[in-house]
Amino acid sequence: MPKKSRFLHTPVEPFAIEAGLTVDQVLARMERISFQGRNLATAHRIWLKMLEDDVTIFMGMAGALSAGGLRLVVAHLITHRYIDCLVSTGANLYHDLHETRGQRHFIGSPMADDAALADERIDRVYDTYADEEEFIGNDNWIADFVARLEARPYTTREFLYLLGGHLWDATHRDGILTAAYRANVPIFCPAIADSSIGMGLSQGRQKRAGVGFIDVIGDIVESANLVIRRPRTASVVLGGGTPKNFINQASVQAEFYSPEVTGHRYALQIVTDVPHFGGASGSSLEEAQSWGKLATDSDRVSVHADATIALPVLASALAVTAPPILKQRRMPVFSLASRVMTVDEQDVACDRFEDRNEPAV
Amino acid sequence: MPKKSRFLHTPVEPFAIEAGLTVDQVLARMERISFQGRNLATAHRIWLKMLEDDVTIFMGMAGALSAGGLRLVVAHLITHRYIDCLVSTGANLYHDLHETRGQRHFIGSPMADDAALADERIDRVYDTYADEEEFIGNDNWIADFVARLEARPYTTREFLYLLGGHLWDATHRDGILTAAYRANVPIFCPAIADSSIGMGLSQGRQKRAGVGFIDVIGDIVESANLVIRRPRTASVVLGGGTPKNFINQASVQAEFYSPEVTGHRYALQIVTDVPHFGGASGSSLEEAQSWGKLATDSDRVSVHADATIALPVLASALAVTAPPILKQRRMPVFSLASRVMTVDEQDVACDRFEDRNEPAV
Amino acid sequence: MPKKSRFLHTPVEPFAIEAGLTVDQVLARMERISFQGRNLATAHRIWLKMLEDDVTIFMGMAGALSAGGLRLVVAHLITHRYIDCLVSTGANLYHDLHETRGQRHFIGSPMADDAALADERIDRVYDTYADEEEFIGNDNWIADFVARLEARPYTTREFLYLLGGHLWDATHRDGILTAAYRANVPIFCPAIADSSIGMGLSQGRQKRAGVGFIDVIGDIVESANLVIRRPRTASVVLGGGTPKNFINQASVQAEFYSPEVTGHRYALQIVTDVPHFGGASGSSLEEAQSWGKLATDSDRVSVHADATIALPVLASALAVTAPPILKQRRMPVFSLASRVMTVDEQDVACDRFEDRNEPAV
Amino acid sequence: MPKKSRFLHTPVEPFAIEAGLTVDQVLARMERISFQGRNLATAHRIWLKMLEDDVTIFMGMAGALSAGGLRLVVAHLITHRYIDCLVSTGANLYHDLHETRGQRHFIGSPMADDAALADERIDRVYDTYADEEEFIGNDNWIADFVARLEARPYTTREFLYLLGGHLWDATHRDGILTAAYRANVPIFCPAIADSSIGMGLSQGRQKRAGVGFIDVIGDIVESANLVIRRPRTASVVLGGGTPKNFINQASVQAEFYSPEVTGHRYALQIVTDVPHFGGASGSSLEEAQSWGKLATDSDRVSVHADATIALPVLASALAVTAPPILKQRRMPVFSLASRVMTVDEQDVACDRFEDRNEPAV
Repeated sequence: MPKKSRFLHTPVEPFAIEAGLTVDQVLARMERISFQGRNLATAHRIWLKMLEDDVTIFMGMAGALSAGGLRLVVAHLITHRYIDCLVSTGANLYHDLHETRGQRHFIGSPMADDAALADERIDRVYDTYADEEEFIGNDNWIADFVARLEARPYTTREFLYLLGGHLWDATHRDGILTAAYRANVPIFCPAIADSSIGMGLSQGRQKRAGVGFIDVIGDIVESANLVIRRPRTASVVLGGGTPKNFINQASVQAEFYSPEVTGHRYALQIVTDVPHFGGASGSSLEEAQSWGKLATDSDRVSVHADATIALPVLASALAVTAPPILKQRRMPVFSLASRVMTVDEQDVACDRFEDRNEPAV
Repeated sequence: MPKKSRFLHTPVEPFAIEAGLTVDQVLARMERISFQGRNLATAHRIWLKMLEDDVTIFMGMAGALSAGGLRLVVAHLITHRYIDCLVSTGANLYHDLHETRGQRHFIGSPMADDAALADERIDRVYDTYADEEEFIGNDNWIADFVARLEARPYTTREFLYLLGGHLWDATHRDGILTAAYRANVPIFCPAIADSSIGMGLSQGRQKRAGVGFIDVIGDIVESANLVIRRPRTASVVLGGGTPKNFINQASVQAEFYSPEVTGHRYALQIVTDVPHFGGASGSSLEEAQSWGKLATDSDRVSVHADATIALPVLASALAVTAPPILKQRRMPVFSLASRVMTVDEQDVACDRFEDRNEPAV
Repeated sequence: MPKKSRFLHTPVEPFAIEAGLTVDQVLARMERISFQGRNLATAHRIWLKMLEDDVTIFMGMAGALSAGGLRLVVAHLITHRYIDCLVSTGANLYHDLHETRGQRHFIGSPMADDAALADERIDRVYDTYADEEEFIGNDNWIADFVARLEARPYTTREFLYLLGGHLWDATHRDGILTAAYRANVPIFCPAIADSSIGMGLSQGRQKRAGVGFIDVIGDIVESANLVIRRPRTASVVLGGGTPKNFINQASVQAEFYSPEVTGHRYALQIVTDVPHFGGASGSSLEEAQSWGKLATDSDRVSVHADATIALPVLASALAVTAPPILKQRRMPVFSLASRVMTVDEQDVACDRFEDRNEPAV
Repeated sequence: MPKKSRFLHTPVEPFAIEAGLTVDQVLARMERISFQGRNLATAHRIWLKMLEDDVTIFMGMAGALSAGGLRLVVAHLITHRYIDCLVSTGANLYHDLHETRGQRHFIGSPMADDAALADERIDRVYDTYADEEEFIGNDNWIADFVARLEARPYTTREFLYLLGGHLWDATHRDGILTAAYRANVPIFCPAIADSSIGMGLSQGRQKRAGVGFIDVIGDIVESANLVIRRPRTASVVLGGGTPKNFINQASVQAEFYSPEVTGHRYALQIVTDVPHFGGASGSSLEEAQSWGKLATDSDRVSVHADATIALPVLASALAVTAPPILKQRRMPVFSLASRVMTVDEQDVACDRFEDRNEPAV
């Protein structure tokens, strides 16, 4: 029903309820409604376009998504290569390790008596509980692993690959760290020092002097070189925080050394924060264009929703719609087992940027 | 896996992705995750409990849900009697009428140039557009209808029933107003003066002196008497605003006149506002207990999510899980065509509270 | 320090701490910082511009501002004519009446045990308590007043003026209703049916049949005619809700009948809601331009802040900066004591729009 | 006015407007209102209590506060020792360095055309702009400094102290880094790899192989040892993020090694994020008690407000009320110039926790 005005081209199509709809059908019907429902449907469409195009897909995750029950969704995205590189907060990796080691988080209440919880050494994350003693056990388990590492710096990418391998050997259970290990998907954790993984590293140093050196500056170099090696990129962000910025920083830093890098081609973020207080977590994808983090002609969408609603819906829909595309996907191939990683059999240095701006001799 | 502490009884069960899940299956898997995903699953469970119990279910809707593509979801909830009484803002009813009359809202952008839109007389609601001239046509259509009404006060409930009937006769199309008319479900609109429906009423008065009197105080009496007649109630709230408070007020006002009224037995709200600024839209269901709006032993949940995501998911799931319960439901039966409505063949006065606290003679 | 780019003209000036700053000095230093601090300073500047210009200033208030301790700030704004017309929720007027009658709200906690509060019949508004029995006393006091009114329709504007007068006679205490009565500032309450003022009205009808008729459609006509009489307007909004929309509606409805009306010349809103869920409370002032609610060349600012922080700061600053401007202000003069109000000695009808679009004879 | 109920003890006292109020007087009047105004006044009172007590005060800052005009407020808090240790995101330190080096951020608009900004290489942070070429200059300036450092690991605390000294030598201008250098206040930056400071470090490594090693795990050990040395602590948080968690982590990690550590005695946070999505930024201070991050009998308050409003108000008030207390304050004395810092002349190791749980010999 085209209208007189150039602005009025596509009518809103009211969502029609029907019994037995699969979740991808629900998302398809959301394409033509408004507000965040439409944005969630757009996110689905953009993710499919990312998979069809020849881009390296970075995914950032912040917020307590592992404790909150989404770790196997993320593991699924890794295993089936909906993403090529994960950037995470330490907490998400730690809570993943906690469950992969056979322990659990528990259904709790946000109205709990926190003093009573403290008495029983139960840690609360909003409506979810965990046993602090089990956490101490994890710290010690990580520290023991760390104490056996060589006394040299490790990027978080290398360290987390090794940790994932150790965890897989110990448990043979699925999770984020083990899925990434098995699928050779790199994980960066730029704020590792602000997490229980970091606490485990520090306790490893307590066990054995000289270990527990994490080369987070090497992560910067390595992530930028990864973008220089494969300049076409996409960004999927769950919840803001350091992962969101680190993914953008990789592109900005890479652009400094290589003219071929011009910002992410696709970007989707699922956020609950807002732009108007100026923080990076809530910043808009339009703002990201001014920085060159995002190509100015990129496909992009921000979904203002809690990831515990949006991600299960989105990933369940993709499980139906993406497999044919995944089969034909040209995805980067990594080797991650040593200090120098490779992508598509090319070295990705962590000690020196690959400087494409240098004049060829 | 029971744990040492009384707090640790039910483990979080990570959401497992699987192709082809129906939306009710997705919600079932969300029951054991955390945060708003869990709350959305709880909302589904509580709605089913409402339907199983013998309660009058009020639903409030605020926010631009009709323009945003949810009007047929609400119509579905009315037709199949997931709810017994709707309380709405005027805008939602007006945008419903707009589409039922065969006109559309349009897909737009939140980044639009509003001066350019104003030039073309396009009205924007975030990412959705409408043609202002069509709105003027609606106002006139309502005004013509109003001008033919008797010159006496109408409660919004009576007026909206008649408007729905007129709209059905004119269009034979489905929508909120027409579905409510056909299903004999009352609609209250306490802030009708703050909407284009109210503007249409005022323009009706322009056409014919003495018409366009809406007895909003009669709505208070009538809604409270409805609760006095059927003291067991439930509240479903989409988005806060006047509908949320009006539903609670009906219970509080009824309690003043009848000792049998003790607050809603069930409450679920889908809100984006927060409690800590003190406004009623974001107020918690716990706070509602202090007022007696909600029974202190009620089942209740707040889902912090945009209704354009949460409601299609919730209603699509209910379309699978609720039908067997709906068949056995004991629901109130209304007649709405005159100044005095009835419920279950009893009068529900709008001019005098049914005072059960008066001593029996 | 001018820069190469047209975009870089005015540097951010870091806020410098100094002992003994008055609040207007603090706001002056916020003019050159960023985010909501800058917006709050801009709101101050825009309010001064409103006062300097020849405009009718509407102020809307929603949220529990009276219970929360801001009723004397609003009374101050009325008395000193920082505003010309108030549009309020019923709750704010009711909580004002509660205190003007010598009763109090109390400091409470958001973590309270609501079942315990319910037992003692204490009503909670986030961190603030009130005694339900005193509320019942207020309802009765209002009902007695209503029962003595003539059995005819009253606009909320007329009713609230009379109520303010009655309250002043009974208490001689300052508050919103009494200040507006004494300063002849009209108050509209479009959602009066959704409040305890409405409950008092309904109980008045219980005491005496035939009273308690509120002509909210008359409010629409009257508020639009007010804009037609004085087409230059400004909007100050605290918290969204029905008052925000009603003020805009007055302009939109007036424009329908008078070509001289082209939207508010100035607009400032202090809101906590956000635009991206599509609701009117959080809608941007840019969006308002598309509707013609706001002139496209208007001065405008949205401050994303709780009014209990922003308003005391803003009003305390204005108390220093505005008085010289207030002295010279050309403000509208109202008479409010009867069914037909006047502005600047001209009638403002509530039964018929002043139609300037009609061809002159 | 004491009331019948134990819950009704302290009445809300409506804020009274008066010309010429200083900002501390405004805060004093907010103590008895509600919602976030009251919380801001409570934050002022709690900060004074922190200063009166013998505690180490940690302050965390996230969000674009330096770019947004608050860097000299933070510098003031450091210089006058309202705080003893700063934990910051890298961006805040980088933007501080940018201005200390004589460059500026600029007043911009959130509605800007980001493609046009990108063309002119202007970076946007919501409503604030910066010149990307100047940023490249900063990166290079940092890289040159880094290239001259010893080829050994530095904690962020040591590195930032040296950077602050270098910046002071180069500029003799006030700012966060230079104030901290001059006042011997340690700064931690756990997510330094996720910032332009980190980018400068990585570029330093480009200039000279073997440099740019930051020992973020050493920061964990050092911050925990600081708490073990002085177990009585307080936490001031602006905006969440890694600084909020790092300050809590220091306490949790310290408690593991020393029974005297029992969580912060005081906590105040100024946040815009909310708890119900489960992220750490928005997490409540009550939740922090369950973890032992906060003593269960601590004084605490969360202010839900943008720091660009709340902090200038709060710090301006403290500038009046705190000086007599500051004079008598027993504050920790640091030396920061080498790999091992000291507090009160005791070593604070970064390679080994001070284990007080070990049995005395």
